[in-house]
Amino acid sequence: MTKAVVLLSGGMDSATCLAIARAEGLECFALSFDYGQKHDAELAAAAAVAAAIGVSAHRVLRMDLGAIGGSALTDDSISVPESAGDDIPVTYVPARNTVFLAFALGWAEVLDADMVFVGVNAVDYSGYPDCRPEYIAAFQRVADLATKRSVEGRPIRIRTPLIDLSKGEIVRRGIDLGVDYALTVSCYQADGDGRACGVCDACRLRRAGFEEAACADPTRYRPR
Amino acid sequence: MTKAVVLLSGGMDSATCLAIARAEGLECFALSFDYGQKHDAELAAAAAVAAAIGVSAHRVLRMDLGAIGGSALTDDSISVPESAGDDIPVTYVPARNTVFLAFALGWAEVLDADMVFVGVNAVDYSGYPDCRPEYIAAFQRVADLATKRSVEGRPIRIRTPLIDLSKGEIVRRGIDLGVDYALTVSCYQADGDGRACGVCDACRLRRAGFEEAACADPTRYRPR
Repeated sequence: MTKAVVLLSGGMDSATCLAIARAEGLECFALSFDYGQKHDAELAAAAAVAAAIGVSAHRVLRMDLGAIGGSALTDDSISVPESAGDDIPVTYVPARNTVFLAFALGWAEVLDADMVFVGVNAVDYSGYPDCRPEYIAAFQRVADLATKRSVEGRPIRIRTPLIDLSKGEIVRRGIDLGVDYALTVSCYQADGDGRACGVCDACRLRRAGFEEAACADPTRYRPR
Repeated sequence: MTKAVVLLSGGMDSATCLAIARAEGLECFALSFDYGQKHDAELAAAAAVAAAIGVSAHRVLRMDLGAIGGSALTDDSISVPESAGDDIPVTYVPARNTVFLAFALGWAEVLDADMVFVGVNAVDYSGYPDCRPEYIAAFQRVADLATKRSVEGRPIRIRTPLIDLSKGEIVRRGIDLGVDYALTVSCYQADGDGRACGVCDACRLRRAGFEEAACADPTRYRPR
């Protein structure tokens, strides 16, 4: 059985990505990060999603991304904004996807997995530079050179099945594959129970996805 | 003053790299990792080197690279070999330089630093794939696309001043710049006091460097 490492945040995109990898018949190894994010309800969601969709292992890697600061998602002195702007938002975590992909690449090599799945999306996204197709292509080149496997002519492939889909298309794809989005948490400031704020950029994109897909939104919002 | 993040392991190469960056008049921010390596005497060495050469800050980022296993440097079930072979050795840590460079890139962005220095060397090295010039070029492309700074037309430059030097040339360069190699620890299995085994691949390369440079070797070896 071909193995794949799947980056799993606990949000809707990575859950859909995992379901796609499973539907391809891959043996999946889910990788999440405890990186000092304020919204650690997503880690409980990741565990629930991994159990529901089915993985051979789910690892949560702890690291202190907050120690280098610089993002509203890890730095207590920066607030999560409640509306979208034109620029790259303060919720951008410097080099986050590069860090995540690097760890996934390392684990894939240890497992002798052929692929790494990451649920980045360049359509309905927050404008983070490390979600763009050209960024992923550049990281693929790193993967083609960085590992012992690549020296042996068996580089690890970076798969991004959601990259060209709209948020509504992602929702429809996931529902076709049986994803229970009630288990997922997207909100940047979810409470300890996983209930969403409804106003941050992640909540806004998620809600629009269910609307576009004409599906009921199972998100639990907290009272404001 | 132009800022640079310098990856600092506590070994001779990264110490030399830091001295080169300082000699260029850069304000340096040293970054080390506590990644579950067996040879954590190198972290004490990194702190001593940072203090001796002079940095504005030295951060030690903790992460659980051992959780994904696969290397003699982090996995208790794999022994550090005492002689060099022809292949990539078991001391290779999967995706280590990619992980380290990713964090350095993130911190550089937060600091608004223009450069990241890494002491990789492709001449007298252990054959790790992520020390080759083509690997560094690929990571530079990632850096050119991954960050908010790069979107603003100010990408962070990855500097590798040692990449084409022999170990003896590195030693001579460092001594010219006043590096005290007695502070550095290269050994993969140094004891708690920082004394080297004298037989691992890192010890072998280091000793050959002092011989080539015709310099006294200040390394403290432990009795065998």
